[in-house]
Amino acid sequence: MSTYKIILICHGETCWDQQNRICGWYDSDLCENGIQQVKRCGQVLKEGGFEIDHTFTSVMKRAIRTLWTILDDTNQMYVPVRRAWRLNDRHYGSLTGLTHAEAAAKYGEAQVKIWRFSYDVPPPPMEADHEFYNVIRKDRRYSDLTEDLPSCESLKDTVARTLPLWNEEIAPLIKKGKRVLIVSNGNSLRGIIKHMEGLSEEALVELNIPKGIPILYELDKNLKSVKPMQILEDKEMVRQAMESMAGKGKAKK
Amino acid sequence: MSTYKIILICHGETCWDQQNRICGWYDSDLCENGIQQVKRCGQVLKEGGFEIDHTFTSVMKRAIRTLWTILDDTNQMYVPVRRAWRLNDRHYGSLTGLTHAEAAAKYGEAQVKIWRFSYDVPPPPMEADHEFYNVIRKDRRYSDLTEDLPSCESLKDTVARTLPLWNEEIAPLIKKGKRVLIVSNGNSLRGIIKHMEGLSEEALVELNIPKGIPILYELDKNLKSVKPMQILEDKEMVRQAMESMAGKGKAKK
Repeated sequence: MSTYKIILICHGETCWDQQNRICGWYDSDLCENGIQQVKRCGQVLKEGGFEIDHTFTSVMKRAIRTLWTILDDTNQMYVPVRRAWRLNDRHYGSLTGLTHAEAAAKYGEAQVKIWRFSYDVPPPPMEADHEFYNVIRKDRRYSDLTEDLPSCESLKDTVARTLPLWNEEIAPLIKKGKRVLIVSNGNSLRGIIKHMEGLSEEALVELNIPKGIPILYELDKNLKSVKPMQILEDKEMVRQAMESMAGKGKAKK
Repeated sequence: MSTYKIILICHGETCWDQQNRICGWYDSDLCENGIQQVKRCGQVLKEGGFEIDHTFTSVMKRAIRTLWTILDDTNQMYVPVRRAWRLNDRHYGSLTGLTHAEAAAKYGEAQVKIWRFSYDVPPPPMEADHEFYNVIRKDRRYSDLTEDLPSCESLKDTVARTLPLWNEEIAPLIKKGKRVLIVSNGNSLRGIIKHMEGLSEEALVELNIPKGIPILYELDKNLKSVKPMQILEDKEMVRQAMESMAGKGKAKK
């Protein structure tokens, strides 16, 4: 029996996704296909009567634009949005901006696979001479961060810096009965999913999160998942999820 | 000599503005002309190198969409946004949804003028049989409000409920050196301007705030204005305003 529910959505496809380019903390925007993905997502949510009380997103425009589209399409632009760097995608260090083929040519395919698919091996850091060092490392949006600002991350590092936001801000809202939506990036969502599901490191590395599709988790009173992720494929599934979700809207009816 | 600066922007024209319809708390969206207004505003701000650290807006989509457009055009979608009902427009009670002609026909032109242009005379309240009672009074976005929720407001009432947000959230950020942008509704902006300028009630009633145009105020250490509002008409004026504004971005350079 679940006590709480939460909905997660990974941003739509970006221009760099389309070019098969490793993105990390580079602020690539949604491509036309990504915009269409999130519009379909917004439409399904609208038709399913989607209601939410609080939202979280990263400081990356691919996630924020995905969230904006959903809030607009479901007529909920007034819902609070918390932007947090802790929901950013994994920082890919020196690999940032390379296509997968370029990374393999530069570092060897086997090594790149280790960096991409191991749990705790970070790629080399992004150094000051990296093409995207200034637009990422020196970006004004990170000027309040000091020792927290990574120059590369393993998946383990990403999970570790995501969880303080979960523990300090997201979990307390869920426990208050608020219906929470997180629209963010694949690897920070993996961190949250690992925490809720108690996934092994091996299982987490295998986990793929579909883009621009709502994912429902049912949670017990300790915010641990009581069943695997449920993909909300159509408006009926959204409607069923809504009917059983807590929230200030329902409580007043 | 000014110590602090703040920028205010009133939302662009709405569909109801175009129809000459009294809007108040009805959530009318930007019309095509309004969208063009705020795009021009975004373009001027972009060309002037506009940078901001924190933003405030109302819970009305005309203000939020204006803000979103500006954040998008100036590549600052990551900047925190605080949505607050205290920045909503004046609640026009029973007049909501009437055109000015309809209001005059129903209540008499002299009486409507008193409600519209006096400082402290509220229009009749919005009763339960009003056409827009349910979409405003019963709106989920106000479900946390109880005794605060108005059913009509004088300009004085609007000023009074705007100021707690100024005192508790906006002023402390300005005093910390944060560059603050408020994108909101005409009458809540008037409340803030009255407070900063120490305007008389008579002067406030006469004050018109242009739509979709950035307004700069220079403030002393007590956040009182040291000169009248400055309309930032072009990119050079935006650039000059930016050069002398505090902010975490500048401080790091």
